[in-house]
Amino acid sequence: MNFHVITLFPEMIESALSESITGRALGQGIVHLNTVSLRAFSQNSYGSVDDYTYGGGAGMLIQCEPVWQAYQEVLTRIEDTDREEKDPLIPMKEKKVRVIYTSPGGKLFNEKMAYEFSREEDLIILCGHYEGIDQRVIDRIVTDEVSIGDYVLTGGELPALVIMDAVMRRVPGVLNNEDSAETESFENGLLEYPQYTRPSEWMGVKVPDIILSGDHVKVDIWRHHESLEKTKERRPELYTEWLKSRGIW
Amino acid sequence: MNFHVITLFPEMIESALSESITGRALGQGIVHLNTVSLRAFSQNSYGSVDDYTYGGGAGMLIQCEPVWQAYQEVLTRIEDTDREEKDPLIPMKEKKVRVIYTSPGGKLFNEKMAYEFSREEDLIILCGHYEGIDQRVIDRIVTDEVSIGDYVLTGGELPALVIMDAVMRRVPGVLNNEDSAETESFENGLLEYPQYTRPSEWMGVKVPDIILSGDHVKVDIWRHHESLEKTKERRPELYTEWLKSRGIW
Repeated sequence: MNFHVITLFPEMIESALSESITGRALGQGIVHLNTVSLRAFSQNSYGSVDDYTYGGGAGMLIQCEPVWQAYQEVLTRIEDTDREEKDPLIPMKEKKVRVIYTSPGGKLFNEKMAYEFSREEDLIILCGHYEGIDQRVIDRIVTDEVSIGDYVLTGGELPALVIMDAVMRRVPGVLNNEDSAETESFENGLLEYPQYTRPSEWMGVKVPDIILSGDHVKVDIWRHHESLEKTKERRPELYTEWLKSRGIW
Repeated sequence: MNFHVITLFPEMIESALSESITGRALGQGIVHLNTVSLRAFSQNSYGSVDDYTYGGGAGMLIQCEPVWQAYQEVLTRIEDTDREEKDPLIPMKEKKVRVIYTSPGGKLFNEKMAYEFSREEDLIILCGHYEGIDQRVIDRIVTDEVSIGDYVLTGGELPALVIMDAVMRRVPGVLNNEDSAETESFENGLLEYPQYTRPSEWMGVKVPDIILSGDHVKVDIWRHHESLEKTKERRPELYTEWLKSRGIW
């Protein structure tokens, strides 16, 4: 799987993904990262890619043309890779590549979307910055406008990293056993139960007896109960959804 | 304002915040970043801080003791800074420092929380990793368990970065005029309207006439209408909330 990130801060994207599980996946070639600097497509001698907003309002807006040219550059790279892999004489098939634009105005990112994106061969992520991007180029190239949550950030780079991380861990081969993908939060629509590791007593506090009992049925019942209570308290809307999904509500 | 981050990947935190607006705020000393490596407090010769989960289940869990010792280290640094700033002979007042634990099981992060956190002098952020952290040390030190959204990530570092970014831009002096903090998404409970910048015509597509009309009342009405339509389509639950807040629902 190939991630193509159009951004004002390519180094931030590269360094943040170079550690831990995502760094390992990139190092092993399970996923590939290709960053494209928006600034390289500046239309003026200052190297700027933004301008004032028509109609008034604070903040600068990223212009259409640099985004469009960066996008063309990414498409060329994808085509070149395809050519290398296949017979260069066979005419290239029209490839529909998904373009994600990270913006607080998008649809809320969730696990379902992460799974869907992880099935793509190529994913282009366009990072907003300043006040945003001219609507005309968004309308022209973006297939998915995605928000990672109801808060405002200084740029689209962190959302791009969050999306890539959540998508990468869904790509087969990225997680190993120790990373664990199966029993995570949200897999069953509930928050995760409390967990404990050695030592069995720490600063006078013991791990609950039931957890150490070795009775797996009891452990499962206890964990399920704790998940329900935690979800009910912290995320009542998820709890209601869970009840509905079970036909209880 | 001081951010203290307890993490397995201090370099990732430092490098991701070193660019753009957050990098400028750190460089100017408006905010301070202090990372503490969890691995430095390993209890064994391998340098590991995790162990198997009691009661079964895939994945490793971070142990209590390394987290506790890293926390003590942060408290000492905060106290030392306080001493330097004040008369060293005056006994230190008990300081209640907020400790945020990034976890998909926490309360959903939002702008209100970002504002609240931005009023703190010190903020400790504890990054989870692997399957999570032993519940006993969470119960002991954490004041706020926070989730940035309903998706699973490979670690708590990206959520910590997202929280710090959203909080930092709320700290007075961090944003300048060009960054704009006022007219952002969510300020009025609606998604942001489409925006345009030069040129007025791009690839045959013109900026809407009304935006270029110079009539600010008309521009405002158009923008408000677009915000409403976008919110209704993409985030119906926000739209309903907005209607309720106006007494329309």
